[in-house]
This record gives sequence, structure tokens and C-alpha cells, in this order.
Amino acid sequence: MRELSADDIEALAVGAWILGTGGGGSPYHGLLNMRRLYDEGLRVTLMDPQALADGDDVAVVSYMGAPLVTQERLVDSRMTARSVEVMEEYIGRKFRAVMAIEIGGGNAMQPLMAAAHLKIPVVDADAMGRAYPEAQMTTFAVGDLAPAPLTSIDPRGNEVIVSRAATWKWMERTSRKVCTEFGSIAATCKAPRTGAEVKRWGIPYTTTKAINLGKAVMDANRRHEDPIAAILKAERGKRLLAGKVVEVERRTTEGFLRGRAVLESDGRETIVLDFQNEWTVAWHDGRPLASTPELICVLDSDSGEAIGTEMVRYGQRVTVIVLPSPEIFLTPRGLQNVGPRAFGHDIDFRSVFSS
Amino acid sequence: MRELSADDIEALAVGAWILGTGGGGSPYHGLLNMRRLYDEGLRVTLMDPQALADGDDVAVVSYMGAPLVTQERLVDSRMTARSVEVMEEYIGRKFRAVMAIEIGGGNAMQPLMAAAHLKIPVVDADAMGRAYPEAQMTTFAVGDLAPAPLTSIDPRGNEVIVSRAATWKWMERTSRKVCTEFGSIAATCKAPRTGAEVKRWGIPYTTTKAINLGKAVMDANRRHEDPIAAILKAERGKRLLAGKVVEVERRTTEGFLRGRAVLESDGRETIVLDFQNEWTVAWHDGRPLASTPELICVLDSDSGEAIGTEMVRYGQRVTVIVLPSPEIFLTPRGLQNVGPRAFGHDIDFRSVFSS
Repeated sequence: MRELSADDIEALAVGAWILGTGGGGSPYHGLLNMRRLYDEGLRVTLMDPQALADGDDVAVVSYMGAPLVTQERLVDSRMTARSVEVMEEYIGRKFRAVMAIEIGGGNAMQPLMAAAHLKIPVVDADAMGRAYPEAQMTTFAVGDLAPAPLTSIDPRGNEVIVSRAATWKWMERTSRKVCTEFGSIAATCKAPRTGAEVKRWGIPYTTTKAINLGKAVMDANRRHEDPIAAILKAERGKRLLAGKVVEVERRTTEGFLRGRAVLESDGRETIVLDFQNEWTVAWHDGRPLASTPELICVLDSDSGEAIGTEMVRYGQRVTVIVLPSPEIFLTPRGLQNVGPRAFGHDIDFRSVFSS
Repeated sequence: MRELSADDIEALAVGAWILGTGGGGSPYHGLLNMRRLYDEGLRVTLMDPQALADGDDVAVVSYMGAPLVTQERLVDSRMTARSVEVMEEYIGRKFRAVMAIEIGGGNAMQPLMAAAHLKIPVVDADAMGRAYPEAQMTTFAVGDLAPAPLTSIDPRGNEVIVSRAATWKWMERTSRKVCTEFGSIAATCKAPRTGAEVKRWGIPYTTTKAINLGKAVMDANRRHEDPIAAILKAERGKRLLAGKVVEVERRTTEGFLRGRAVLESDGRETIVLDFQNEWTVAWHDGRPLASTPELICVLDSDSGEAIGTEMVRYGQRVTVIVLPSPEIFLTPRGLQNVGPRAFGHDIDFRSVFSS
């Protein structure tokens, strides 16, 4: 158990945005919330998942919806805390701690906001190790844990509890529709997990990983060294290409941001990057170069900062890197939930690290 | 408190369909369920609302969604009972009785099915006195009672609790989206009402009214008398016209069945009937002849049976009658919720009974 410093949280925002692999929304608004809460004297502590008792109750939080909407309806730290309180009222127990469902993007910040208000620690773990667009794309779903209950909250005072879901996919469908009606963004508290479940199925130490990743980038920039080299070293990643964005195609469909970006590499080759919120597959001449569940990250070639699928635009100089996936998503059941076919691409997954 | 006979329930199906004013869905599938439950030896008792203690909890049930869907996914009496059980689990109390939100159409049968399974009585009352398409179109909304909580159930095992709603309109929006995702039909248990609330805001004795109306039609047919005259006498209604359906326009939009039927009266006049699930306004030469909240009923000219807006078709010989509205909907607040403007028609309500 250690108290997070203000610097840790700044680094978390940078690292989480990289782990967002283009999606998950920028952590920037969450960061602004956390700066304010720290200015007000609130503090957040980070808890080792191994310190959880098997019977502890852990709240799992996230903002659900279209990240773009948060540019109009700002992230409100009290809403996330409220989603946890509604869950406590529903299950009739208090939570020992709170954790992120996804460490990639803005949702890395959500447990911190809830923790600051509720004065409970944040567990150093998540259930994606990155960002993914759908509710069944988690280690908890791979582990076949219960998908329900879930609470969903909007700022007007509307609150919904999905008390039972036939499957994870049904939880996704039902909660997505509620979120859409709430204005395409909702604060949610996912199915509570026991300490035993978090220890068995959570991906440990991803908060620390994101903080360290962010620090590597910030330190490299401070020393005028190559930030991308620092990322690749910290995460044992692989550089796919450097080049220029020459075309972007983007459409908002069924609550997701879908499309593709076309890049021209410095060696004059054309690379296509598909996305569904997150980058899913990198193509060259119709053949996949890299794909989910490995993390495809598009970074500003100078600063090493992540570029979101909603922000990528013509003319940007970018470097595309690939970071390793958590082991659990490389299993048959993992690939079923988050492999290329889960995103509609009829190709087998092949690791860029095995070639 | 009296036990309903099998004949009462047959009559209820006929009377409720007339009070549906074209919407609410046919009570036929509900009737089939009740015949089966009565064959199995279950019985339902009807309770005078005045017999409720102020502090009694009353469950308010309905099927929500597109009536047409029930022709593929049959009404299941256990689903309605389950929606009540989920509400009991949520509020932590058992219900004293169950009542209909709308006595018009198939929802007149819903409390009977729940009552048969749960072995509690049905309160002889509802909150519409007819059928209306939206959640805020009830006496409970006119009385500004709390719109939440609501439970919504599908046959796959999905269950949602709308635990808080900013307004009645928000309850309508949120629960409608859930229902749409469940396949455009869901069994719902609306916000529980106390005995005091039912006595103050419910419309009393509408179950008995529907039974008597159905009996009047069935008796007249048995005696080869005019069933429509029997309805007008029982309900102090007014005959608007008799004629033939010459045109029907129907579209399913935003979860509702909208459109218009054009009738040619026996006097060669052209009458247009608009509908949103229920018949809303009758027009002649662009002037309103009759409108909601008064009950516009389109009946088969021979049998006196109601014709639903989803069933009306070219060539039918019909008689259009108007029945009086419950007093509460004629107040300014009532008209705001269910008057012509609530259905998008920019006209003032004028009673056919005052002219």
C-alpha cells in the first residue's frame, strides 16, 4: 500500500493513453479532476492485489460510451463515486477497494476518482491490460465470472441496475443501450469481484506499469532522448514503422468509432490500420502485419505521445509500435473474446514477437 | 374481495380490448394463459381498492413494447410474476396485491397472471382507464408520484432495474430502450404504489368496468341484439359514424406503431383517424371531431369487437364510437400528459359530450 504522488498521476495519464492503443479516450479530463482533488487535499493509495483477502469486495469502475462525448460533457469524479455507492446500496455491503476495468485510456483514472471520494484504496490491477471496446473483452469474461450486476449513472439523476444478464454479450448489449440513451456516456460500476477473483483473474500491477511507462516517456523528453525507444525498452515492444498519415476514414456506428487510417512509411510502403475505438489490425498489401490482442500503438514520432483514433489526422508524423499482450488473451478462450475475429476480421492471430 | 370466474375473465378480454382504443395489444394471448392457469386449478381474486391499508405495497405490472411482437414471442405468465419477484427482492418487501397500469388491451390480463402465480389479489383499478402508449401517460404521473424503481425482464434471463429516473419522461426513455434491446417486448413491474397512493390516484373499479363491458357485448351477441348499442348504453358513449375503411397507412417508428386510417362514412363523408399505438384524433375536413383523452374506439359493425390499429385493414365495415375519459385526464395537468398536444397534434381538446 503506497500513496500515489501527484507526479505518479501525471505519469499515469501519459502511460495509460499509450496503453489505450488508440481508444479508451484521453485521460486528460480525468487528470484535471485528479489535480483538483489533490489540490483539495484528497489522496489516493495504491494497493497490491495480493493484499486483498479472498472475501473482500472490490468495485470495478469505468466510464462507458463514446470518448468524444466527454469533450462536451466533462468527466465528473462524483459520478463515478456515485456508481459505486449505488452498487453498495444494491448489494448491501461496502467495498474494500476499487479497481479499473481497463488501464488503457481515460478509464485508468476512474478508480482514482472514486477512491478519492470514497476513501478506499485503488487495486493495482485491471482486466484488460490495455483498452478494449466491449464488456465481454476482459479477463473476467475469459474466466467466465458473473457478468452482473452493473450500475449505470447519468448526471441528471438517472440510475439503472442491470441485475442479471444471460451472458457477457447480453450485459454488453443491455448496458450499451442504457448508456446510449443517457447521452452516449455513463459512469458504470461493473460486477463486483471478490479478492479471490481479482487475484485469480485480474492482470496485476498494470497501474504501476502505466505509471512507469509514462515516466519513461516524460524522462526521455526531459533529457531530449528518443521517447519511443524508451517505451520499447520499458515494455519490450517492437517498432513496426515510422511514416505519415495520408488518409483517415472515420464513422460512428452502433455506439463505436470505426474506420481506418492509411499511413505511408518512410520506405514508401502503404500500411492500413483498422480500428473499432482501438486499433485492431495493421495491414500491408492485404496481409496482416500485427493485430489484437497485441497492442498496436500509434505515437507522435517526436513526443512519443499516443494518438487516439478520434484524433488521428492527415499529415501527422507517426510511429507505430506493437506491445505484448497479457498471456491470458493468447489462450484459445482469450482469442475468442479479443482476437481478430472478435472484431470481424477473418484472420488468425500471429504474434509479431514470434517471427 | 371476490373470486373471478372463468366467464369474468372471458368478458374481461372482450371489454379490455374495446377500452384499448385500438392499442394495448389484443388480450387474446393473456386470455389463453389464464384459461390454462384456471384449468390447472389456480384462481384469482379481485380486491376493492378501498380495502387496501394506506401502508400496503401494491405491484403495478404491464408488458411494455410492441404488441405485434407477442404474436411471435408469446406472452408468458411466469415472466410477469418474475418481474414482481425481482421488485420484491429489490425493495425487500412482499406485495399485498397487484394491479394493472392500463386496463385497455392485453395489459388488463397481466395482473391476473402475476396474481395467479404469486397468490395475491388483483386490485380493481388501473392508472389509465384505457390504453396509452407512454409511461408518463398515467394518473400516477399526473399525481407526480415517484417514477422509479421499475424492473424489466426478458425470457432469456436478462433483468434490469431502473432504480432512479430524473422525470417520468426519463423513465419512459430509459425503460423503452431496455425493452427495445430485449426484443421490443419486456415484462415490467412499475414503481410500487402504497395503498394510500392507489386510493388517491388510481382509477377505481376499471377491472369490473371492463368485465361488464365485455359481458354487455357477449350478451347482446347471444341475443342477436346490436352489441354497439349495448356498449354505448353501458358506457354512456356516443356513436361518431359507421362506414368502411378505404385506406390504411402504418409505420413502426421509435418503438411505436404510428399512422392513420381513412374511413368513408355511410353518408359519404371522409373521416381520418390518426394513431400512435392508440387512436388519437378523428378528423373531418381538417377539423377534429374527437380526440384523446376521450376514448376513440373502432369496432366491427357486426360483432362489436374492437379492431386494433395493427389489424385495421381495407374494406372492413366499422363503427367509430367515443367513450368518456376519466375526469382526472380532463384537468390541465391531465391534458398536458395525455391531451392531443402530448401526441404532437396542435389542437385544443374539446369533448364530444359537451357539444
